[in-house]
Amino acid sequence: MIKMGVIGYGYWGPNLVRNLFEVPETQVVAVSDMREERLGLVKSRYPSVRVSTDLRTLLDDPSIDAIAIATPVSTHYDLALRALQSGKHVMVEKPMTSSTEQALRLIEEADRRGLTLMVDHTFVYTGAVRKIKEIVEQGRLGDIYYYDSTRVNLGLFQHDVDVLWDLAVHDLSIMNYILPNSPCAVAATGINHISGGTENLAYLTMFFEDNTIGHVNVNWLSPVKVRRTLIGGSKQMIVYDDMEPSEKVKIYDKGITVSNGPDSIYKAMVGYRSGDMFAPQLDVSEALRVEIQHFVDCIESGREPITGGRAGLQVVRLLESASRSMKHRGRLVELEPDGLGVLAGATA
Amino acid sequence: MIKMGVIGYGYWGPNLVRNLFEVPETQVVAVSDMREERLGLVKSRYPSVRVSTDLRTLLDDPSIDAIAIATPVSTHYDLALRALQSGKHVMVEKPMTSSTEQALRLIEEADRRGLTLMVDHTFVYTGAVRKIKEIVEQGRLGDIYYYDSTRVNLGLFQHDVDVLWDLAVHDLSIMNYILPNSPCAVAATGINHISGGTENLAYLTMFFEDNTIGHVNVNWLSPVKVRRTLIGGSKQMIVYDDMEPSEKVKIYDKGITVSNGPDSIYKAMVGYRSGDMFAPQLDVSEALRVEIQHFVDCIESGREPITGGRAGLQVVRLLESASRSMKHRGRLVELEPDGLGVLAGATA
Amino acid sequence: MIKMGVIGYGYWGPNLVRNLFEVPETQVVAVSDMREERLGLVKSRYPSVRVSTDLRTLLDDPSIDAIAIATPVSTHYDLALRALQSGKHVMVEKPMTSSTEQALRLIEEADRRGLTLMVDHTFVYTGAVRKIKEIVEQGRLGDIYYYDSTRVNLGLFQHDVDVLWDLAVHDLSIMNYILPNSPCAVAATGINHISGGTENLAYLTMFFEDNTIGHVNVNWLSPVKVRRTLIGGSKQMIVYDDMEPSEKVKIYDKGITVSNGPDSIYKAMVGYRSGDMFAPQLDVSEALRVEIQHFVDCIESGREPITGGRAGLQVVRLLESASRSMKHRGRLVELEPDGLGVLAGATA
Amino acid sequence: MIKMGVIGYGYWGPNLVRNLFEVPETQVVAVSDMREERLGLVKSRYPSVRVSTDLRTLLDDPSIDAIAIATPVSTHYDLALRALQSGKHVMVEKPMTSSTEQALRLIEEADRRGLTLMVDHTFVYTGAVRKIKEIVEQGRLGDIYYYDSTRVNLGLFQHDVDVLWDLAVHDLSIMNYILPNSPCAVAATGINHISGGTENLAYLTMFFEDNTIGHVNVNWLSPVKVRRTLIGGSKQMIVYDDMEPSEKVKIYDKGITVSNGPDSIYKAMVGYRSGDMFAPQLDVSEALRVEIQHFVDCIESGREPITGGRAGLQVVRLLESASRSMKHRGRLVELEPDGLGVLAGATA
Repeated sequence: MIKMGVIGYGYWGPNLVRNLFEVPETQVVAVSDMREERLGLVKSRYPSVRVSTDLRTLLDDPSIDAIAIATPVSTHYDLALRALQSGKHVMVEKPMTSSTEQALRLIEEADRRGLTLMVDHTFVYTGAVRKIKEIVEQGRLGDIYYYDSTRVNLGLFQHDVDVLWDLAVHDLSIMNYILPNSPCAVAATGINHISGGTENLAYLTMFFEDNTIGHVNVNWLSPVKVRRTLIGGSKQMIVYDDMEPSEKVKIYDKGITVSNGPDSIYKAMVGYRSGDMFAPQLDVSEALRVEIQHFVDCIESGREPITGGRAGLQVVRLLESASRSMKHRGRLVELEPDGLGVLAGATA
Repeated sequence: MIKMGVIGYGYWGPNLVRNLFEVPETQVVAVSDMREERLGLVKSRYPSVRVSTDLRTLLDDPSIDAIAIATPVSTHYDLALRALQSGKHVMVEKPMTSSTEQALRLIEEADRRGLTLMVDHTFVYTGAVRKIKEIVEQGRLGDIYYYDSTRVNLGLFQHDVDVLWDLAVHDLSIMNYILPNSPCAVAATGINHISGGTENLAYLTMFFEDNTIGHVNVNWLSPVKVRRTLIGGSKQMIVYDDMEPSEKVKIYDKGITVSNGPDSIYKAMVGYRSGDMFAPQLDVSEALRVEIQHFVDCIESGREPITGGRAGLQVVRLLESASRSMKHRGRLVELEPDGLGVLAGATA
Repeated sequence: MIKMGVIGYGYWGPNLVRNLFEVPETQVVAVSDMREERLGLVKSRYPSVRVSTDLRTLLDDPSIDAIAIATPVSTHYDLALRALQSGKHVMVEKPMTSSTEQALRLIEEADRRGLTLMVDHTFVYTGAVRKIKEIVEQGRLGDIYYYDSTRVNLGLFQHDVDVLWDLAVHDLSIMNYILPNSPCAVAATGINHISGGTENLAYLTMFFEDNTIGHVNVNWLSPVKVRRTLIGGSKQMIVYDDMEPSEKVKIYDKGITVSNGPDSIYKAMVGYRSGDMFAPQLDVSEALRVEIQHFVDCIESGREPITGGRAGLQVVRLLESASRSMKHRGRLVELEPDGLGVLAGATA
Repeated sequence: MIKMGVIGYGYWGPNLVRNLFEVPETQVVAVSDMREERLGLVKSRYPSVRVSTDLRTLLDDPSIDAIAIATPVSTHYDLALRALQSGKHVMVEKPMTSSTEQALRLIEEADRRGLTLMVDHTFVYTGAVRKIKEIVEQGRLGDIYYYDSTRVNLGLFQHDVDVLWDLAVHDLSIMNYILPNSPCAVAATGINHISGGTENLAYLTMFFEDNTIGHVNVNWLSPVKVRRTLIGGSKQMIVYDDMEPSEKVKIYDKGITVSNGPDSIYKAMVGYRSGDMFAPQLDVSEALRVEIQHFVDCIESGREPITGGRAGLQVVRLLESASRSMKHRGRLVELEPDGLGVLAGATA
């Protein structure tokens, strides 16, 4: 039984607590939040849970094994570091930290202390994404040509991060999990429409060493909600539409075959290779519950979580580079391949 | 009655000829194509039409008033110039030419001779786009925040142009028609997956002097066909989905109102302003027919067509700049505001 | 503050309890269920609530003002009657009872004791249905031509009722609420595919005195979930699609105009009158919460609930007649207009 | 080469002529229509085709092998009979005739003269329906539980037939083609909203000897166009949605498994068996062209067409019975199994 403390009971905290209650191997013993009224909510729902506005009561409690952090991004580093230094395993909301440097520091601290550090990239634990991972690993797509995602809707504007850090973070964590390689350079553009705000709309292109390109379109100001990812391969192609009530993942036996036909003076005769479409059955377990189970397994086995510190760092590096590129209207930012050099031996 | 010659009877030519037959004010007298078998097709369908593999028979025929050109892009300039020099009005397929220089030269020639020069930006003449134009001109969207278009499907790979010149040309012609301002800079990224081919997938960001951003996502290798444009404004927003069998244009009374709420330490309380949605009735006339009628009107009145040489030039300038940016992985290319300086007095 | 007892904590009970907790004017003091493990669930979630396998502890408790009944249909009559006889207001799951006779008896008992009797026709309290009601009452549809509903999906097969009593009950309660008149006759067909089961697929036609027809298609064995109702009028038409994430209600300014054209020897020239489409903003409050609030209001004011006993009776009469017709493969069953005669003065 | 005459150049005639021109084995030599302006249209499009308002010029022309009839339903019998009596093969629009008696008479005439008689049930020749037929014949659905079709839209009101004869005719021809058995009884309801018109909205239930039920919902007054058929089986289920631009046929590995669970007092625990979904590639050839090719093959081989007279008769019998049932508000009409007795040896 892993005894958990939860810091932050705002938007995501209640989902964490509810799922921690439903996983038999975890038990929520205390929740901390700076806002009394949020703690009142905890009390009315879970009378057995201790609450406090002072997070030290959690960090200093020797009976607590692990801390889940669901606070604003800017506080992740400080809170996670303190939790690790108090000897607690840590599950921190995405994105892991505000900078690569902070992420590296947390990984180092967790490694040194032999603690589990996990980032809550929830989508990675959905049945849809796990199925796509399986298909890609089986080589069914052939060469990966592109990863193209659109994640737009109306709201929630964030104070401390731009739309890349809020929405693209999902796509980057999914993409990193699914694709065999990582981007070597990024170019991002975007715009901020709210006085004093951050970019609320952004476009991110990612270049790879091989013949792959990645793109993410994120927008807080769209009248319609779109959650659609196309993954194109030389053999097959995937459409992952998270707005579909069922059949979220569709695999198309489609592609092209190039040849010269009678019209070749005018056009390449690119034959449509158009075969069957296939929508595999997906595991419909709640992702957060699957993830918490994985967190428990990693604590017990000492293994690096699928979305451990190194995976979290990868995403932060991309976001950091993307925001930098966006400030310069799409200027290419190359990602140093040895960015993880100091972490030699890492399994991410 | 405008007597027309048509050059090129490949993919688009048959649509042109069919519509030219249905507009009472135009009459197709001759068709030219280098391929005998294409001319055979013309003969069997329209026995009254003269055919020839030698386009000079059209250009030299004094009874022909106007020439429609539906050939590969690389030939547009040369054919259009010869037609103008032969004293014919010209309707040329999109994109107008392969370069800004060529476009300027054609405009100059047409102006000097008092001939009508029109580019076949067909989408501009659809009921959907004309309705959107009307809504934007009425100011119903408020400030335009963004123009974001996705135009992807499987095929047709082009020999002589990349996917921007093939697909984004539609979005740029629509955007230029609808928005009050033009982009001042572009940044494009893309990739070519076919040996010896051109970029078959591209992302184009367009910056404006004001608070607007434009983006176009085009792809010849998508398993699904998407034709969706979001236009966001401070008051209302439009979704234009050309794949919908009806209700192609939807106007959302949606937006945001920023305020500080109890959670303001964590998040900006951005209120969803979510009102009614409205799908106006659209004129379902075939766009090409409306366009041909407009061509006739312009010939008779001497007015510049909505998609005249200047509109065509604008699109070519954007494409040229975008392709240049794409070659340098998203490097910003600024568009000189005086690009049309030599054309002072132009109405485009 | 209305103190509530809840009988039945199976599929729907938890939703009831959760919402009763969220409405400030109601307080759940006790829950009864025959299954210990269900009561254990109540205890873990709501430690303050008393639980018992003996419902008499609820009925005999003078501090309890009202009873919510969420048990199988066959038990509704007995439980509701006992609750009323114990002086409790009653909110009973749909359908109200297994027969018209039982429904009449409950209404009588509630009337005599001055207690509120309400049936949980939840859909009537959704923003979508309330909006449709408003539109119809404004006369915007003109004459109502038809009410045509499809409600199909895979599951849940019921033991004690057929698919009409399980699914069509929703459509009938909505239709009765929306339309100004009630059906005067029904004809139903259906089939049972499971040995020992009830009809799992049924089609119900309803005739009205005026020019209206109603139809409901319900099916427990559909591979896809459909929740779509078309309401056709002489002026406008509504499509209510509950599977849409937003824009669940669409109002079409569509219809026909009949005239004779040149082809009139062959076909009536029926002109499509095709105008704008309009999707009004809907209240997104949880229906069950709105309904409980209404229950409280009715208890306090003594008014008949929108879905009171009389509305519940109407639905049971239709279901009873429909099942009878279905047993005889669509034989017409006329509904006696004086079926409610004994209830003269009723407001339903 | 089959030389064809076409009678009727209204709504469907032009499609027939266009496809007859494209099939190499057929040649249109003459078109007849009572309306001069329709013949003018033929002349302008196909100068080589003879036209006449007197259909005797076609029937008496010994060079004409076959006649295609695309006139109103009420004229089908008379025209087809005259064509057969003139020794011509016949392809007649759906529905074949206005009555069973007429249909039997035509079959007899064609049989006696050894001529091919085919009904233009176009949908049977689509890639979608042919694929569904193949799947059903392979036994992949298991026992067929139901065939449930919705075919509604706005228009075209017919003068001489009700909505069953206009729209349900498609569903019945498809259903008869796909299912191994035929209905043994029907019950239909409907309504007419237009003064002097026929029923414009109808619901038809079909009973089978086995555990199958059929239902068709047709409506000329729907604001949205729906073309959706569900075919449920004990093993798999099909959704055929003709409005989808692609993936018109989807096969769901879905069904139920009944068992008793902890909640069995309340509900049967019917397990969802929910596996993969599969959308097979479909032949996209134009159905009418495939059909004409089949007509030619049957003329040459003497075989009964898939949609020959007997198939046409089956559909007319169902329509006739359905209209009779509808006149009596759903009264069951049993279909005599020996309806085709006089046609012993028929292959339909």
